[in-house]
Amino acid sequence: MLDHTHVPAAASWVDGTRGHPDFPIQNLPLGVFRQGGGTPRVGVAIGDQVLDTRAAVELGLMDGLDPASRLALTAGALNDWMALPPAARTALRHAVFALLDADHPGRARHASLAGQLLRQQAQCELLLPADVGDYTDFYAGIHHATQVGRLFRPNSPLMPNYKHVPIAYHGRASSIRPSGSPVRRPTGQVRTAAGVDVPALRPSAQLDFELELAIWIGPGNALGAPVPLAAAADHAAGYGLLNDWSARDIQAWEYQPLGPFQGKNFASTVSPWVVTADALAPFRCAPMARGGDDPELLPYLRDEADAAAGGLSIALEAWLSTARMRELALGPCRLSASDARHLYWTPAQMVAQHTLGGCNLRPGDLLGSGTISAPDDSGHGSLLELTRGGTRPIELPSGETRLFLEAGDEIALTAHCRRDGFARIGFGESRARIID
Amino acid sequence: MLDHTHVPAAASWVDGTRGHPDFPIQNLPLGVFRQGGGTPRVGVAIGDQVLDTRAAVELGLMDGLDPASRLALTAGALNDWMALPPAARTALRHAVFALLDADHPGRARHASLAGQLLRQQAQCELLLPADVGDYTDFYAGIHHATQVGRLFRPNSPLMPNYKHVPIAYHGRASSIRPSGSPVRRPTGQVRTAAGVDVPALRPSAQLDFELELAIWIGPGNALGAPVPLAAAADHAAGYGLLNDWSARDIQAWEYQPLGPFQGKNFASTVSPWVVTADALAPFRCAPMARGGDDPELLPYLRDEADAAAGGLSIALEAWLSTARMRELALGPCRLSASDARHLYWTPAQMVAQHTLGGCNLRPGDLLGSGTISAPDDSGHGSLLELTRGGTRPIELPSGETRLFLEAGDEIALTAHCRRDGFARIGFGESRARIID
Repeated sequence: MLDHTHVPAAASWVDGTRGHPDFPIQNLPLGVFRQGGGTPRVGVAIGDQVLDTRAAVELGLMDGLDPASRLALTAGALNDWMALPPAARTALRHAVFALLDADHPGRARHASLAGQLLRQQAQCELLLPADVGDYTDFYAGIHHATQVGRLFRPNSPLMPNYKHVPIAYHGRASSIRPSGSPVRRPTGQVRTAAGVDVPALRPSAQLDFELELAIWIGPGNALGAPVPLAAAADHAAGYGLLNDWSARDIQAWEYQPLGPFQGKNFASTVSPWVVTADALAPFRCAPMARGGDDPELLPYLRDEADAAAGGLSIALEAWLSTARMRELALGPCRLSASDARHLYWTPAQMVAQHTLGGCNLRPGDLLGSGTISAPDDSGHGSLLELTRGGTRPIELPSGETRLFLEAGDEIALTAHCRRDGFARIGFGESRARIID
Repeated sequence: MLDHTHVPAAASWVDGTRGHPDFPIQNLPLGVFRQGGGTPRVGVAIGDQVLDTRAAVELGLMDGLDPASRLALTAGALNDWMALPPAARTALRHAVFALLDADHPGRARHASLAGQLLRQQAQCELLLPADVGDYTDFYAGIHHATQVGRLFRPNSPLMPNYKHVPIAYHGRASSIRPSGSPVRRPTGQVRTAAGVDVPALRPSAQLDFELELAIWIGPGNALGAPVPLAAAADHAAGYGLLNDWSARDIQAWEYQPLGPFQGKNFASTVSPWVVTADALAPFRCAPMARGGDDPELLPYLRDEADAAAGGLSIALEAWLSTARMRELALGPCRLSASDARHLYWTPAQMVAQHTLGGCNLRPGDLLGSGTISAPDDSGHGSLLELTRGGTRPIELPSGETRLFLEAGDEIALTAHCRRDGFARIGFGESRARIID
């Protein structure tokens, strides 16, 4: 649903927000911040600042909202906000928009309270947006699945189930960290040589990133009560960026027969701002077109609204900065430019699939989309693809080369949405540096 | 460490506890109970009753304990108890033992408070012992892995990694339920016929149980700080019974390449009582003997103390009762008699492996051992094994047969420990009925 919060001419009275590349008033993503060791508070990004929503509630500026929404804004995590019904999340967005809107009749009073309402983002610690009950990682990036599958099975890269069922695995919730937390290279069992079934204990020599979309779950469902596809979109409360770090050598030795485990569970890095489903409304698009040889979907994965606008058009990028590049004052280099359009399955299809057998989702659960690669070489969402399985080094502006990540390497994932007639909005970033 | 709490002649002043098959004073497992819609409270099972530990604290009967331990006893879940250091958990056991001991000098006063301290278990709702942050399921039952592997790969049933690395996958925490909660048969994508790569949407026709040991994690570790094997046993705070329900037909279609997902995540049933590591001290044993052709373990999985007594001797049983059997007033029939001795990896090795790459464990995390089957036909820990992959029906006392579970079927897992010179202790049960 498009409404006045999407009008591109709208602007905030907060300085420097008009035309802000990520956080103009049309975005209003939520997050959790802390200042100087204080308690975590919910905030909304506006330009380079953070609106302290608890302060807004305490100043009586959110009195038009229902009590559950006001309570969610004074919590220390976004789980309560995610638990709100979609209409309440939309009403909350409108209330925040009104507070920050330069054209609002109360503008003068609102602006006079800026000192109590606003914090500089740069002076805040941005925390994990929610307490993640469960983290599930899908495998919906079909170009990634194809390119990785081709490394192992040149003639049949995609498994027979791929185009029938949104494949996923359960990931580790405890090791999810917000942008900025360093990632320690894991030690693990790896094969002593390719094709040799004898392991050695070593620090991973094949540490990789994965460019993924994060989907934050809203109200969720009771155990045993599947969410039908037509209702599934209401359960995706917001979106972020997820780097599902992977140790390819550990993964290759461990993954049969039960899938990835220690090749993944040492860390996942998520961006701190939750871009709401409402903010993304202008950027909905049709899901990836099925080809003539693609199988017909089972009815539970088909829904007219989802087939018309269940996809998302989000430009996604991955950037690398090495220690040497920083010494040379070279900026990060872009490794990948992809788009959420390259997902074979929509977020709603993921929710419908996840709950099909009765599995319950809870507010604050996190879904990863799977690595989103473009169909061409400019948009590989992992080094595994960029280096053809670790065989072709990539060259960096510093004269260095990389097959996989080294100590001091920093990966930043970024994303933004653009469409004619709408303000550009961005996701901020998921950034982390490798330490040994 | 054996101490006075393990002396077989010890007895409680609580009626009917001497020689109780599960809960004599030598056991003292902890759990969480609720009465009549009240708030959840921590309790200790003693005979057929529950000691209300909050009441004990409020009556001043736990004043010898440190504040963190007293606080853990007044909480609504066992996470705080699990977070205590092992010495504090032992001191707490001694304090509860003293309160219930028939030979304690304070016996008369303690017994006079029975009305405030004790509840009938049968009148309590027994809840999930802890808020499970993450649930990991290992695959350490080597006879199960061999028997299931043989169904698919007759000549090489075990994967090459099996005897080198404790294999595991991440499971779903949100759908873990305590004993007594019904399990709804999941619907999912299954192959329309064996070997045909076309799916249909159906209720699972191959619903199975899995007989597993549950391991409740104690203090845990910080992200990036592995727990060495010599310290790992301290992180297994207690044990229970876990039924990791499995829909074999859903699993068979979905599991490549990322492992089990919807074939498992619709439900797991855990027993409500946490049998402490202290209570199990007399039942430690050497781990499974490695054969001459077994590979040497990497050093991080070798530790003298663990190699001497890292195993557990726990008799495990699975029982089936069908609706027809109950109509005929026939008791449950035993499907399986196995033992935790049949685990290839010790709980300490599981903890050391899980944290090897830096993954953090948190108090209240749950590890499953994997299905524990005996080497012979009397101890298959799943119907998949009992029916040879769903090809040979088992016969029941009611004249019925089963390949997999039907509506109304109830599976109960039970366990007990016996050793000459020690009191028998038991685990209670993990029981659940299938509903369609």
